[in-house]
Amino acid sequence: MARTTSLSGFPEWLPEERIVEQHVMDSLRRTFELHGFSSIETRAVETVEQLLRKGEIDKEVYGVSRLQQDADEPNPEGALALHFDLTVPFARYVVENGGHLTFPFRRYQIQKVWRGERPQEGRAREFTQADIDVVGDGTLAFRYDVELALVIVDALSRLPIPPFVLRVNNRKLAEGFYRAVGLTDAPAVLREIDKLEKIGADAVSRNLQEHVGATPEQAQAALALAAIRTEDTSFVERVRELGQSNELLEEGLAELAEVVGEAARRAPGKVVADLSIARGLDYYTGTVYETVLVGHEKLGSVCSGGRYESLASNGKKTYPGVGLSIGVTRLVTRILSQSMASASRAVPSAVLVALNDDASWSAAQDVATALRARGIATEVAATAQKFGKQIRYAERRGIPFVWFSTVAEDGSVTHEVKDIRSGEQVAADPASWQPPAEDLRPTVLSAQQPRH
Amino acid sequence: MARTTSLSGFPEWLPEERIVEQHVMDSLRRTFELHGFSSIETRAVETVEQLLRKGEIDKEVYGVSRLQQDADEPNPEGALALHFDLTVPFARYVVENGGHLTFPFRRYQIQKVWRGERPQEGRAREFTQADIDVVGDGTLAFRYDVELALVIVDALSRLPIPPFVLRVNNRKLAEGFYRAVGLTDAPAVLREIDKLEKIGADAVSRNLQEHVGATPEQAQAALALAAIRTEDTSFVERVRELGQSNELLEEGLAELAEVVGEAARRAPGKVVADLSIARGLDYYTGTVYETVLVGHEKLGSVCSGGRYESLASNGKKTYPGVGLSIGVTRLVTRILSQSMASASRAVPSAVLVALNDDASWSAAQDVATALRARGIATEVAATAQKFGKQIRYAERRGIPFVWFSTVAEDGSVTHEVKDIRSGEQVAADPASWQPPAEDLRPTVLSAQQPRH
Repeated sequence: MARTTSLSGFPEWLPEERIVEQHVMDSLRRTFELHGFSSIETRAVETVEQLLRKGEIDKEVYGVSRLQQDADEPNPEGALALHFDLTVPFARYVVENGGHLTFPFRRYQIQKVWRGERPQEGRAREFTQADIDVVGDGTLAFRYDVELALVIVDALSRLPIPPFVLRVNNRKLAEGFYRAVGLTDAPAVLREIDKLEKIGADAVSRNLQEHVGATPEQAQAALALAAIRTEDTSFVERVRELGQSNELLEEGLAELAEVVGEAARRAPGKVVADLSIARGLDYYTGTVYETVLVGHEKLGSVCSGGRYESLASNGKKTYPGVGLSIGVTRLVTRILSQSMASASRAVPSAVLVALNDDASWSAAQDVATALRARGIATEVAATAQKFGKQIRYAERRGIPFVWFSTVAEDGSVTHEVKDIRSGEQVAADPASWQPPAEDLRPTVLSAQQPRH
Repeated sequence: MARTTSLSGFPEWLPEERIVEQHVMDSLRRTFELHGFSSIETRAVETVEQLLRKGEIDKEVYGVSRLQQDADEPNPEGALALHFDLTVPFARYVVENGGHLTFPFRRYQIQKVWRGERPQEGRAREFTQADIDVVGDGTLAFRYDVELALVIVDALSRLPIPPFVLRVNNRKLAEGFYRAVGLTDAPAVLREIDKLEKIGADAVSRNLQEHVGATPEQAQAALALAAIRTEDTSFVERVRELGQSNELLEEGLAELAEVVGEAARRAPGKVVADLSIARGLDYYTGTVYETVLVGHEKLGSVCSGGRYESLASNGKKTYPGVGLSIGVTRLVTRILSQSMASASRAVPSAVLVALNDDASWSAAQDVATALRARGIATEVAATAQKFGKQIRYAERRGIPFVWFSTVAEDGSVTHEVKDIRSGEQVAADPASWQPPAEDLRPTVLSAQQPRH
């Protein structure tokens, strides 16, 4: 864990760490599929034009070009670059394949993305994101905003991580309120509110007055709204106490109440209304989500997203959607650096078949084949070293069982299997022996769980 | 399938195609783990210096650099590029992490790689490879050359592809033979022999004489060797009939006989000795493998590799290894373009829970949660359209079952589930109902297999 990688910001895991990462990704995949999301992948590269269309140059895009590109060779696609998230590529995919998809289209996508930002704890240059989105053709029922919060709660609850809180807000609520108090440039106000956690209320108040032209009273009202945070729908009453009202605000209040009300019933304390949540991206138009690990707030959000009315469009058609993105590498890095979970062993193998002599390798392969046919991961020793050495090899690799086959003078074969942790050795039949269920595959154990 | 992607050479799959790709990758992962291989991933980028060290500029490397890179900003790592295979990155990984690994180190690695070559059927610019290698610290028993052929046969046999043949040769055998007939530049001879399938024996003979300085007799001898192809160890006798002998040739004959002998016993006809196999890469030092699909020879090799004595080295230590690389994208593209296999449905969902009215959404979520708890992928309708419309939505998506819950006047709830293929509708309990096993998840069916 104290290893440093040879390229800063490009994490690589050891095999036992990779098992934890695979566990996280497998678990997310399984949950997303249980909720009816289809897997897709998009290519790693987009045209630079496509990537910069949303003005996301702050994402520090990596350009890609052939080292041997001839200067005078035409490049019909234009310059290429690595994607910096999975939302922009997904939007392109939906527009390109709209005729082949069934809407509302539910997809998950677990892939690497690249950003050339300064690496630090929780921020890598190459990292894995796990996104879910539901996208409609023309319209998309609001209910999906509720559903996606529930899917994410289900997905995160199955991971070996500390308790989390999904903080939800609504752009309509915020924008309606700002308009009601006379602040018309909602994005500008949100940009300042976004800094609240970092610089504090006084500084945000000053900025609102200096940068957005707010009066002290308007700034105070905006901060009063941002101070509201409830685990149930009582935020509605708290907003009403601020004495503002208009149609957009009411719509936002109703939407947020629907998300938080349903979530409070199903997963108490995991989804809160937090009216300070702004999210930087301009394309969100309603619900916005972010997620912190309790006690790890400084790590930043581990899952963010929101509703967008027009992320994807091909001119004729508009595809509104709602989605969230889990920072898999951010989570896995924290799990590993703080030993929140670990693999029960470093290798898939449950059994090493030992060799009596060099000629028995082929017979040992037969034993291995019989075990594998029942799903038992098995290796065969490559050379007939002394048994002690073969056992130590298994020990070093963390393989729990060593298998011995002895051929008697009459040609009959006796099989025995040794649990090298307990030293217990018993007769066994390659056609029927089964290891204890917990030894069949490496498992990932939370630090809190008892180990076997 | 007739879709063209918007960027030539960068394939993207539709959800139902992606299920086939996932099936292939899951199957490979499972087989590799059953044989005791650990998963690792390496970063997508390497330093250009590292990538070009082996002189592989013919691989058309893609360079990577930040679009906003300041010209005067120091770049301590040097120029970066996308990896073009998984072997070079793996070699670096082993050298960097040698102290944390247990040798012989068995790893599999399934990742995308990039090559800026001209796209054509079977050759993409972004594609997935699945590699297995065993690497030793200083030495590595020859037996692994046998074992890896068996692992690959096992892995490919589980895929929905046509029959395949793993063609094996040995560099020592070829080099020893060439030396015995007086041809000393073995790599040059191999380069010409490599073109045999493409240009034919006469042209190769001419090239050997013109480019390598062979006499007509030497060229004839080299071609006679390359013509030998046997499904068992009888190639040994065939080589002996050519009347040449030396130590290196004998070593190569013995090694190849061990691979083919063991394989012929375990998987008759799947592994052949083919003395025309050259493989382009200079770092192979003994066994070389390539694999063709029978009837699809023009597709090229779908799995290649070999033994290397010094691919990875940090100056003090040398890590010899043997490995093979499966062209996953090449296989999947062929499976899809020729409809060799397809997904039983396009979505993971087995059940759609229909809505009676808008207020029943939360109760429908309770049903879905109960079903998911038993591993049944379930969606809930977002709006209470007419049942006919909800059923058509399920039909369009390929969801086999629709669930109906009716609340009676006394508050009691009746549940029924409809198989929309047969129209059969039966009473069901959310706490215990189970779909037929073949409907639980989308399955991938070979074109030859009967469909349900």
